[in-house]
Amino acid sequence: MAGYISDAVIRRLPAYYRHLRELEDAGVKQISSQDLGDRMQLTPSQIRQDINTFGGFGRQGYGYPVTELKEHIRAIMGLDHEHRMVIIGGGRMGRAIASYAGFAREGFPTVALFDQDTVRIQMSTEALPVYPVAELEERLPGMAAKIVVLALPAEAAQEMLERVYSLGIRAVWNFAPADLVYPRDMTVMNVHLSDSLHILSYRINQQEEDARS
Amino acid sequence: MAGYISDAVIRRLPAYYRHLRELEDAGVKQISSQDLGDRMQLTPSQIRQDINTFGGFGRQGYGYPVTELKEHIRAIMGLDHEHRMVIIGGGRMGRAIASYAGFAREGFPTVALFDQDTVRIQMSTEALPVYPVAELEERLPGMAAKIVVLALPAEAAQEMLERVYSLGIRAVWNFAPADLVYPRDMTVMNVHLSDSLHILSYRINQQEEDARS
Repeated sequence: MAGYISDAVIRRLPAYYRHLRELEDAGVKQISSQDLGDRMQLTPSQIRQDINTFGGFGRQGYGYPVTELKEHIRAIMGLDHEHRMVIIGGGRMGRAIASYAGFAREGFPTVALFDQDTVRIQMSTEALPVYPVAELEERLPGMAAKIVVLALPAEAAQEMLERVYSLGIRAVWNFAPADLVYPRDMTVMNVHLSDSLHILSYRINQQEEDARS
Repeated sequence: MAGYISDAVIRRLPAYYRHLRELEDAGVKQISSQDLGDRMQLTPSQIRQDINTFGGFGRQGYGYPVTELKEHIRAIMGLDHEHRMVIIGGGRMGRAIASYAGFAREGFPTVALFDQDTVRIQMSTEALPVYPVAELEERLPGMAAKIVVLALPAEAAQEMLERVYSLGIRAVWNFAPADLVYPRDMTVMNVHLSDSLHILSYRINQQEEDARS
């Protein structure tokens, strides 16, 4: 579909999708690179460049057709089909992810949760099947899962990544506070919540020092 | 304490802290820039440069003292004192954050949750006090909270950010899928979980196209 897209543009894709969805909801049919740039805090020329790499949209002077562009980006991101997720780790984080319904609504349903201690967890996850990690090799291949969510302690994450790789998983959404090493044909997206909180804390600290000086 | 630190280094601070904590737990006393670089996938010279900006640690040939450096970075990030958080939004995301005990353990206790509908939410948050959003102006100033966690729908987040700003809040941890606009003396860290999932989805899509071609 689209050719080579740079990493910087890939990171902006979700924001394009979000803004175009909001515009569509607001009934906007067309948007100029100027107006879209204002919303997204990008220059109009950056907007035009980005959208060109998606596949040549819009005509000079008419702006971009909101719904078409949104659907196009949706397809580029593969959001036009479902990606089943399996969560490994039934601690507070894993259960929080499992209980958050928003992902399923967006096409990322969680189909199962694996943990050492299935009894403790079964109670709090309602409809979601919970299996012992020992049964991963037996069960995971039949689940048609594309994404494994790692919600494990840092020290267990690397070994589990290798284990699911050998079961054919090529996409990991990692919530463990660890920098994982993985093969080139695997994709890992990290959500390091504590890191984000620590940067916030750093900035509060700086504000306070600035205020004192 | 430390002088001007670039944004790129600030973003690496939490990773330094994580790795040094792991090294300390493993009983490592000293670490060379080479070994720390190998762990963190940075060059030794980048490690030396970064650590110099923190305040001149270690002597050539001896490596860095693990515990001292960790404690120093901990202080730079303000993790040596507590930052109280208030969550606004008691939907699934807000409740998930509230129920995750890890943040409190790291010095970020949640002291209250605000939502429109206090009755629905009170049941599921156990010990945490839940107040109606209408009482925000009355209650927030007395809570000594440093961080407001926004766990609201995108369309409600900007207005709420302005509301808490006028109540003296200068740090926001934003989980709403929105790009917020905020004054220069405010700090906002975004956790756009859906964006992260969408990038993962994009990469799965590309892997599949590459495999087909």
